[in-house]
Amino acid sequence: MSNNNKNRTSVDIYGQSYSIVGSESTSHIRLVASMVDDKMREISSANPALDTSKLAVLTAVNAVHDYLKLKEEMEELEKELKKLRD
Amino acid sequence: MSNNNKNRTSVDIYGQSYSIVGSESTSHIRLVASMVDDKMREISSANPALDTSKLAVLTAVNAVHDYLKLKEEMEELEKELKKLRD
Repeated sequence: MSNNNKNRTSVDIYGQSYSIVGSESTSHIRLVASMVDDKMREISSANPALDTSKLAVLTAVNAVHDYLKLKEEMEELEKELKKLRD
Repeated sequence: MSNNNKNRTSVDIYGQSYSIVGSESTSHIRLVASMVDDKMREISSANPALDTSKLAVLTAVNAVHDYLKLKEEMEELEKELKKLRD
């Protein structure tokens, strides 16, 4: 968070409008929203019977999985960096 | 993904049961599910009027935001590592 100014950004995700408040830039919030929208549409086309709520939960599962994988990679990089610095 | 064996893991997220199939370990899938469940409860207690579907979408927004922030940090680390190796 680079400053304490709060932006309110209106985004559309899977046909529903959301007003997101935060100190992030509008472009960052729009990017996040479009990634969530894309992922929901991808999961929905593979599982057409899912209702929106389950679809959104599985999208969150997917995003948290990606986050944890990236975190593992980051920990590896940090180890390498530490070795090179010592 | 370390192998091609598919595991089916049943998890409970926000009172709803999900069967998640993938090559990840059961413990990884349970960890992801519990992080999503925690985040949904956290967002819900701050916004009690949200329905489950919007709650799940905002949880996904949150997770994708965290992912992008971590990715930025990782790119910085990679730059540092490259400098140290060159």
